Order: sequence, then structure tokens, then C-alpha cells
Amino acid sequence: MKLKPAPELTVSGWLNTAEPLSLAGLRGRIVLLEAFQMLCPGCVSHALPQARRVAEHFTAHGVAVIGLHSVFEHHQAQGSREALAAFLHEYRIAFPVAMDAPGDAPGDAAGDRGGLPRTMAAYAMQGTPTTILIDRQGRIRRHSFGAVTDLALGAAIGSLLAEGDPVSAPDGSDPALACTPEGCPAP
Amino acid sequence: MKLKPAPELTVSGWLNTAEPLSLAGLRGRIVLLEAFQMLCPGCVSHALPQARRVAEHFTAHGVAVIGLHSVFEHHQAQGSREALAAFLHEYRIAFPVAMDAPGDAPGDAAGDRGGLPRTMAAYAMQGTPTTILIDRQGRIRRHSFGAVTDLALGAAIGSLLAEGDPVSAPDGSDPALACTPEGCPAP
Amino acid sequence: MKLKPAPELTVSGWLNTAEPLSLAGLRGRIVLLEAFQMLCPGCVSHALPQARRVAEHFTAHGVAVIGLHSVFEHHQAQGSREALAAFLHEYRIAFPVAMDAPGDAPGDAAGDRGGLPRTMAAYAMQGTPTTILIDRQGRIRRHSFGAVTDLALGAAIGSLLAEGDPVSAPDGSDPALACTPEGCPAP
Amino acid sequence: MKLKPAPELTVSGWLNTAEPLSLAGLRGRIVLLEAFQMLCPGCVSHALPQARRVAEHFTAHGVAVIGLHSVFEHHQAQGSREALAAFLHEYRIAFPVAMDAPGDAPGDAAGDRGGLPRTMAAYAMQGTPTTILIDRQGRIRRHSFGAVTDLALGAAIGSLLAEGDPVSAPDGSDPALACTPEGCPAP
Repeated sequence: MKLKPAPELTVSGWLNTAEPLSLAGLRGRIVLLEAFQMLCPGCVSHALPQARRVAEHFTAHGVAVIGLHSVFEHHQAQGSREALAAFLHEYRIAFPVAMDAPGDAPGDAAGDRGGLPRTMAAYAMQGTPTTILIDRQGRIRRHSFGAVTDLALGAAIGSLLAEGDPVSAPDGSDPALACTPEGCPAP
Repeated sequence: MKLKPAPELTVSGWLNTAEPLSLAGLRGRIVLLEAFQMLCPGCVSHALPQARRVAEHFTAHGVAVIGLHSVFEHHQAQGSREALAAFLHEYRIAFPVAMDAPGDAPGDAAGDRGGLPRTMAAYAMQGTPTTILIDRQGRIRRHSFGAVTDLALGAAIGSLLAEGDPVSAPDGSDPALACTPEGCPAP
Repeated sequence: MKLKPAPELTVSGWLNTAEPLSLAGLRGRIVLLEAFQMLCPGCVSHALPQARRVAEHFTAHGVAVIGLHSVFEHHQAQGSREALAAFLHEYRIAFPVAMDAPGDAPGDAAGDRGGLPRTMAAYAMQGTPTTILIDRQGRIRRHSFGAVTDLALGAAIGSLLAEGDPVSAPDGSDPALACTPEGCPAP
Repeated sequence: MKLKPAPELTVSGWLNTAEPLSLAGLRGRIVLLEAFQMLCPGCVSHALPQARRVAEHFTAHGVAVIGLHSVFEHHQAQGSREALAAFLHEYRIAFPVAMDAPGDAPGDAAGDRGGLPRTMAAYAMQGTPTTILIDRQGRIRRHSFGAVTDLALGAAIGSLLAEGDPVSAPDGSDPALACTPEGCPAP
């Protein structure tokens, strides 16, 4: 009766970070993994702005937002690092973004699906956008394909943050007085 | 070093409920108390639709949404039960709504502020909309005047739901497997 | 084969104007007549903000925006001048608003439909919101019940403004150089 | 004192049309020319959806919507026909789109501005999105850089459609009875 550990990311490159990142290195934090394609309208209009809002609101409280560019179609149009870099620049996306490693048969012609990228396949994602939440112990706690509401995503994140919050445990203080993203209650 | 207990509601009437409600009767649930005025544009466009979303998403998980009509201006226009009933009907608001008891000097002329309604005064609210979250032990955990984002409100609710969740404690099961608004994880 | 002349307004009072207005007095201008009820959600969320945008954009070019509060339900809640005044104040509606004269059997109980207000009946309106456009000769050129898109409404207004534009006719100048809401093209 | 004739388009290719188009071939219709870049957020979120709305609403009334992909930055990311085709497919853009002919020094490195594309330069456009309206006689009547409201754009189009409407002129009928995008008024 165990939750599934989140597979480590298999990537061909990183943007918006000086050093490559890994889920192992992010252990202890909540991780929002947002899989997208730059030519996916729902990613552009909803999922990426949402990921940015999560980054703005929760980074200071121990949530890491990681974008994952999982290209499974229109490889010629969106498969290059240059295309992704231009997209992230124009859309002012600042959180780290990994380029999902291409699958076995990446395909050559425009529009050809080819094999799924490796991380997308490891997570058995249905497509983009896919929103994944990973808890402090590195286990998958949420996996959604398509649009997720801010209310639902916020609740999931708030719930994970409240689990075994290291801030409140060690000194025996009232967990109700622990700082949360909502603030630090005065004694 | 204690959190403040939420003052009991002082109301002159209830709508959308067969029996009068009280915070004491709601002990054990998370309570979202949404103070509004029917002529307050921000309440109509943002806070009340948000309260309805919270009711739809979280009622099954132990969150009670209560509206509080705290009229402190334009008493002639919005001070009557008939006006409020018509408003709730047209805006399809189904959660229970309390009419805040008038203050000492309610005022007669249109536009006159008069004294603040009693519950509004007891909570030292700044105006409408005011969003208040009360935890399972009946303590105030959030108090905001003005617009609150869905992300922030969702996180606050998710965090409160994760506190001392009665579902997971008694039988020693892994709290990570407890049902949350996001679902019930398969073992 | 004639277009229908717009019936004169039959009102019980005016707000936001020092003097009572009439369609006869507005002859020569395009008139946007917006029928609404303060408790009608579609009026509050769409039609009234749209009427305000039309007033901001087109008043300088000969378009008059007139609101018509045509109450046919919830008379107790929204039938008074005070209620309407409070609503217009809170929603920052500055264009002139007429109170449609009550019909024959106005009804007493909250929620009772009663007879239709007189102007609403004269125009055979289906309900609120109703958007009516009247041309410079006082004829009805558009009558819509429900939401109208900005694109469609803008086109209708632009079309009516281009008809027999007094600015361009008298001096024989190129009508293509006439000022329009879009600006005055340099020679 | 003449309006400026719209320069003919200089393009390197067309998409969404079996035959190449030209402004000369569109004479007699109103033309909405929408210059965009697929990596321009304002184009994706506002201008292109607006152009699609114009196409849906006005095509039957003699308005032609033409997209113009004027790439002046991030040439590697968005300069190819394949990239544009993938973008148009994913965003369900069906109106004809021309690829603006590259300027003198197109640039090689990602992000390099290079020379402006030829049509963009001929119109002295400031960037993307740029919205241009051309009248039935092929003259530029509107040229805006940045977001244009639906109300303003609708009014400009409605005004141009009302100019010398061939439908109403020949048989001496009342021009007020001519069909407009709003409908055909009953006699």
C-alpha cells in the first residue's frame, strides 16, 4: 500500500537555471512539474500562467516549479532549444524548464508524432498540459491531464505543505502557529 | 499565545436554510464566512462566485460556506429581507446566508452609513467583501478584506483540511493515503 | 416599406441628468437605449459595462447612451428610485437613466411580475437586457434581447454613424476624409 | 488631399489558400490585414482571436481577413513555413496567412532582429500586432500597433461597409433597408 515514487527526470537540456536540476536534489520540497509544448494552446493560455502564479505565490514556502517541455508532435517547429528559448523569453517564463529527452523514434517530418519523450513516457502522461505534484518524500500525489482550476491546485499544494511541516515540528510549538503561505499568525 | 476564537454570528434572519445555523453547530468543519453587500460590485463579480466555487468543490470534504449580508450603507436599497431574497434568487446563490443584525444606529436615509452591523463589528471587518476562514476548533485562521485569489484561498483551505484530519488518524493508516478534495489515492 | 419609428419613452423619473430627456430631443444623434434591471445578472456583468464602453468611445461622435430601468419582477427589491440611485452610484454608471413607467397592474408581493412597464411594452421587449439602436431620424435599427458582442454592436453603430454624416456632406469634401470615431485622417 | 493606397503585399508564401492572394484581387472588399508573429504573446492572446471573430462575423458581408506573418526576431524559432503551419493548425486559424518576404539582412543567430520583412517595412509598421483596415478602393483607413478593442474595430468595419454599399445603390431603394452584418430589416 505505497504511493508511487516520482520517476527521475530524463532530460536533454535545461533552461533558466545555471545548474541541471533533479527530483533527488529537490527532495524536501513540494514539486510542481508542468509538462507542456510551446505550440499547445491550453498550455499557453492556462497551464503556464498558472505555473507562474504558483511560483510567485509559493516559492518562498518550499514549492519548486519545474517546466518540462515534452515535445511529441510538430518536432521541426518546436523541437529545438532555440525555439524553446525564444518562447520562454517572449512569455517571460523564469522558472527552470527541462527539455524532455526524445524517445526512440523521434520522427523527422513536421507533424509526425514519433516516440513519446522519455519523461512523458515514464510518467505515462496522456499529453499536454499535464500537471504533476510531488510531495516532500518524492512521491506522486497528483497527476492531471488538461486544465486544473486554481482552487483545486491551491488546495492540493496547501495540503501537501501542511504535511509534516519541518517548521513547526522540532520545537514543540503549536502547529497552528506555523507560517503558511497565508502568513505568520501573531501569537 | 493563542489564536482568536471566531465570535458567534449575531443575525436577524437566515435564508437558504430550514434551520438557523451557528458556528458552534458547525464545529469540526472548516467554515468559509463570506461577508458581502448585494450592492457591492466586487462582491458580485468576484467574492460571491468564488464562495460558490468553494461550496461546489469542498462541501463534500467538510467545508461549510456561509454568506453574511452585512449592510452598512444604502440601507433603504438593500436592507430588507425581500431585497436579499430576490438577489440570491437571481444570482443562483444556494449556500446559507445570514442577515447580519443591524447596529445601534441603523440610519434611515438612503446612503447613510449608520452603525456597523453586529457581526461585522465583532470581527472588526474593514468592509465588504471580507473573507474569513475558521478552523475545526472554531478559531479564525484567515481574515482578508478585498479580493482573494483562488490559488491563495484554495491553499488556505487545503492546509486547514490537512490539520488533524479525523479520517486518517484513528486506524493508523498512512495519512498520505487519506482522501482529500483531490481524490482518494489507490493503495 | 418603412422602418419603424422608435416610440417615445414613457418614464416616471430620470437619474444622472438635470433635465428630463426625450427621443425627440435627441433627434440627429444615434441613440443606444439599454433596458436593464439592477437584479439582472446579465445586465450587471455584460450589458451595462458595454453601454458604458459605448458612452466612453462614441459620445464625442454623436451617440447618446440612455439607460432604461424596466422593472418587471421583484418590484419590492428594485422598484424604488432609492434602490436604483444606490445601484448607479456603486456601479459608477454616469449616463442618463430613465425609470420606465409602471404598467397597469404593478403587483405588490415580492417577485410578482405584474404588468410590463410602459416603454418595455411599447417596444415589445422580451426582457432584460434589451439593446436598442435608434438612428438619426428616430427609427429603430436594431433590437436585441440578451448579450450582444462588442464587435456586432460596434459595427452597427459605425454603420449608423456613416449614414448621412452631416460633417462631410455640406462642403463637398471627400467623405473618406470625414472624422470618424477612429480619428480624423490627415489630408 | 488623398488617402494613402495600401502597398501590395510582398510575400514568400501563402498558407490556408489554394491560390496566392493579392490586395488587387481583393479590390471591392474591405480587407483586415493582421500582422503577427507566432511568438508574440499579444498576437496569440488578443489580435489573432479578434481577427478570427472578424472573419466569422463579417466574411459574408464582404470583409476579407488576411494574416501576415511578419517575423523580425527569433528567426530560427519562427522563420520557417513548417513552424507557421504547425502554429496555424494548433490554433485553428483558417483564414489565409501570408509569409512576409524577408528583408535584406534576415539574420542567422537566434534572436537577431535582422532587417524588417518587406511588407512590414512598406507599411512602416511599428511591430506586432499591427491591425490594418483597407477600404473598397484599396486605401489604408486604419493602422494600429498593439491591442484594438472589439468596439473600435467593429465600428471602423461597420463604417467602411456603409460607404458606397453596392447593395443599396443601383435600384434606388432606401439605403436604410440595405442588408448589414446586423441583418436584413423587413420592409
